[in-house]
Amino acid sequence: MALAYTTTRILEILGDDCAAVGAYEGTIQGIASLSEAQAGDLSFLGNPKYRASVADSQASVLLVPQDYDAAPKSGQLFLKLENPSFALALICRDIELSLLPKPAAGIHPTAVIEPDAEVSSEASIGAFCYIGPGAKIGAATLSSHVSVGRSAQIKDGALIASRVSVGDYCVIGERNRLLPGCVIGSDGYGYEYFDGAHQRVPQIGNVVTAADVDVGANTTIDRARFGSTQIGAGTKIDNQVQIAHNVRVGQHCLIVAQVGISGSTTLGDGVIVGGQAGLAGHLKVGSGAMIAGGTAVVSDIEAQSKVRGYPAMPMMLFNRMAVLQRKLPDLFKRFDQLEKTVKSLPSES
Amino acid sequence: MALAYTTTRILEILGDDCAAVGAYEGTIQGIASLSEAQAGDLSFLGNPKYRASVADSQASVLLVPQDYDAAPKSGQLFLKLENPSFALALICRDIELSLLPKPAAGIHPTAVIEPDAEVSSEASIGAFCYIGPGAKIGAATLSSHVSVGRSAQIKDGALIASRVSVGDYCVIGERNRLLPGCVIGSDGYGYEYFDGAHQRVPQIGNVVTAADVDVGANTTIDRARFGSTQIGAGTKIDNQVQIAHNVRVGQHCLIVAQVGISGSTTLGDGVIVGGQAGLAGHLKVGSGAMIAGGTAVVSDIEAQSKVRGYPAMPMMLFNRMAVLQRKLPDLFKRFDQLEKTVKSLPSES
Amino acid sequence: MALAYTTTRILEILGDDCAAVGAYEGTIQGIASLSEAQAGDLSFLGNPKYRASVADSQASVLLVPQDYDAAPKSGQLFLKLENPSFALALICRDIELSLLPKPAAGIHPTAVIEPDAEVSSEASIGAFCYIGPGAKIGAATLSSHVSVGRSAQIKDGALIASRVSVGDYCVIGERNRLLPGCVIGSDGYGYEYFDGAHQRVPQIGNVVTAADVDVGANTTIDRARFGSTQIGAGTKIDNQVQIAHNVRVGQHCLIVAQVGISGSTTLGDGVIVGGQAGLAGHLKVGSGAMIAGGTAVVSDIEAQSKVRGYPAMPMMLFNRMAVLQRKLPDLFKRFDQLEKTVKSLPSES
Repeated sequence: MALAYTTTRILEILGDDCAAVGAYEGTIQGIASLSEAQAGDLSFLGNPKYRASVADSQASVLLVPQDYDAAPKSGQLFLKLENPSFALALICRDIELSLLPKPAAGIHPTAVIEPDAEVSSEASIGAFCYIGPGAKIGAATLSSHVSVGRSAQIKDGALIASRVSVGDYCVIGERNRLLPGCVIGSDGYGYEYFDGAHQRVPQIGNVVTAADVDVGANTTIDRARFGSTQIGAGTKIDNQVQIAHNVRVGQHCLIVAQVGISGSTTLGDGVIVGGQAGLAGHLKVGSGAMIAGGTAVVSDIEAQSKVRGYPAMPMMLFNRMAVLQRKLPDLFKRFDQLEKTVKSLPSES
Repeated sequence: MALAYTTTRILEILGDDCAAVGAYEGTIQGIASLSEAQAGDLSFLGNPKYRASVADSQASVLLVPQDYDAAPKSGQLFLKLENPSFALALICRDIELSLLPKPAAGIHPTAVIEPDAEVSSEASIGAFCYIGPGAKIGAATLSSHVSVGRSAQIKDGALIASRVSVGDYCVIGERNRLLPGCVIGSDGYGYEYFDGAHQRVPQIGNVVTAADVDVGANTTIDRARFGSTQIGAGTKIDNQVQIAHNVRVGQHCLIVAQVGISGSTTLGDGVIVGGQAGLAGHLKVGSGAMIAGGTAVVSDIEAQSKVRGYPAMPMMLFNRMAVLQRKLPDLFKRFDQLEKTVKSLPSES
Repeated sequence: MALAYTTTRILEILGDDCAAVGAYEGTIQGIASLSEAQAGDLSFLGNPKYRASVADSQASVLLVPQDYDAAPKSGQLFLKLENPSFALALICRDIELSLLPKPAAGIHPTAVIEPDAEVSSEASIGAFCYIGPGAKIGAATLSSHVSVGRSAQIKDGALIASRVSVGDYCVIGERNRLLPGCVIGSDGYGYEYFDGAHQRVPQIGNVVTAADVDVGANTTIDRARFGSTQIGAGTKIDNQVQIAHNVRVGQHCLIVAQVGISGSTTLGDGVIVGGQAGLAGHLKVGSGAMIAGGTAVVSDIEAQSKVRGYPAMPMMLFNRMAVLQRKLPDLFKRFDQLEKTVKSLPSES
């Protein structure tokens, strides 16, 4: 993955918000952290705690905050900016577009489009895609091996990576990014025990994602029993997350990898769920709540609260308990000692 | 997902077990819970705790138990039944068949069938399916992008969703439902450390599922080292479950999402494993045992027992401990106080 | 999966290291554990704790250690060896090759190879594979439905199972085994909150795996933000593992199913991570460390140490605490009693 990127192009992207100090004449061959950068690399000071590492960095071009006053070494260029992390993202976005150009509109000759499906002339449909009857594909990009079910919709600007399944009747919002292997609209897990066996409860709802939702690789979101499993606008879901039928996730939530959310649970807006946390069914999680990684949530969570543990408890209490638990062996010893002492004391009688 | 479903059709399905009270003239446009239903919707009283919500429900048609005596509102139809939840499932099943008609028998022109594979004339093989040499496909439905390995078998009535892999020599039972992205018969994870490296132990067994097994989206079931990894009849497995080589799961078990079961562990019949639970290898879980979500099972579990925790303990003990743990900070304080008190007491000497 | 395997062939494979005692005339129809083997089966004594089971085993051919002195039954053949487990692996490897012959070199007519991709004449490319522009495929075997991104590389001897995605610019090392449904090089999960929404941070790095890496079914490994997510030589990763962007895993590690490793965390060599463990981001795990299943790692782990728990603590401490926790109910009772006793004692005044 060798780059050949020019400082001229960087200055074009960053525009007037950027003050250049020093000079570097070559091209940029890579991007790296301050400590790992070599000559020819671009680096940046995003987190103040690495401030001391700038002086030792071998990077040729450095994005630094406006209040960083030390001078660059010879042959080194400092670009002073209000927000170096954001500036780096702009540069990376430009590099990303050069590395991964948007495919041209059109339908790959191997793709199968059922006769009554509608595909926008601006859509790009990759090799071995299957578009089911009645499906509607907007100005979206579908990579290879994508399966789109009956009467499903994919809206403008969506990016559907390789090997994604979008189930029957599901609706994928504008500018969604669905990563490889994710499954939208698999059957909900619903059974009634009857006649000596678990009878399947039909799952006749769908999944609806609002605009700007990201869904990670191999994540699964089940269709509703009836109605819709819903993901709110701007919510970002990581890899291998499981979202069960009739869950409703609010706007701008972050759901980190390997989280599981059971049926009919609702999350407000701006909720953050750490990796591997599990939520039981039919719960309400208030807006702005923060659920630490690995937490098992078995009751409602209030808005703005922070919880952690198995089962979940206020984070402060968990942290205190984590300290005290390690003192348990000592407590048991002290207790035995105290019991002995008390026994040896003179009693009333 | 707009419906247009008639009350006439509902009465046909429910038959004589159903007593109609009141009347609704329109079509049914959706199904919703009592509190969310709007005019035109079908709703139901499945759980007695929602009994009070019936009076406020805007639903036009309601399935209620036989002992529900209040009268419907004007323009509202009550259908009184022994088991409203089961009646709803029958209706949903009928709707499901109308929304998702069974595809016609036949092989999609893009499918690849190796010359010595056998495919039933009643099978439906979707776009981009690959059927390996020697495989036998009964009267089953395969959606798109399904991969069936060498000499694998898929029996009558099975439904294989998009992007499923059925590995070499594996056997999928009658009426199984394999959801998108699941992998049956991946290599077991077995290595011997030898000559400074982990040497792979060949995995020459298979996976055999009995009748009426469901396997969730992106679930993985590994082939046996030798012999068979076995899933018993009527067992229902949720999404993203991991079942390792040589595991044997009994009949009519429920295994909820993101559970992991390590190699050679056996489950009896009717075992329920809650979401994200993990079972170590070479264990026995007795029939009817219930393992709560998130539990880490590291030793055998007796039949009919209920366990929870990390590591697993009897559920009653876990629940008691969860209460006591929150009192630890207080206990430490009380203990410090008691120690002081004891020190201040007159001693024997 | 019926075998018909001869003892002659077994002796050919095991060669001079093997001493035969007794005789069995038939063919071998299966392989099974000592207690489950029937007449016609091959079995083995790999673990000394099953020594007593040899005498009762119905197996016709048994691999036993050199110091196993009891005589075989009539019609039973003992093969005495230094390492019966390793001998079994050699036999299984031979059986595996006969059951699952390596496919011939060549490109399936349905595969799509972009014009500027390079595919070795020794490669075997299965049905419905998509090879992106600029990709380089060595003498590797790709099963069906594999997606290989732009400028990705797959080196000699690699085995890519069905429905694997190898992302743009990723590099798959010699003799890697990628199991079905795994995703190499999905976008890292990186966002900056800005302007009232989570803005995606472009992920312009790749994934590089060294030689002899195995990646389990439906496992996901994210591309780096920049630079490379790295997996060291000989490391074996189980199913449904999540490895985030910029993680570096050393050589000869074992990462068991459903583990999650957060961004930028580094593992040394020979690290073992038990199933369902979770590691927070930006941590260092020293070489030879052992992390028990289900552990939540939230701080650095020293080389050679063993940890367990939520959060992680030294395994000895965890084990002690697991015992003491069960005594908590009793401790609370004893404490209440002691408090009463102390109150009843005569005080100083």
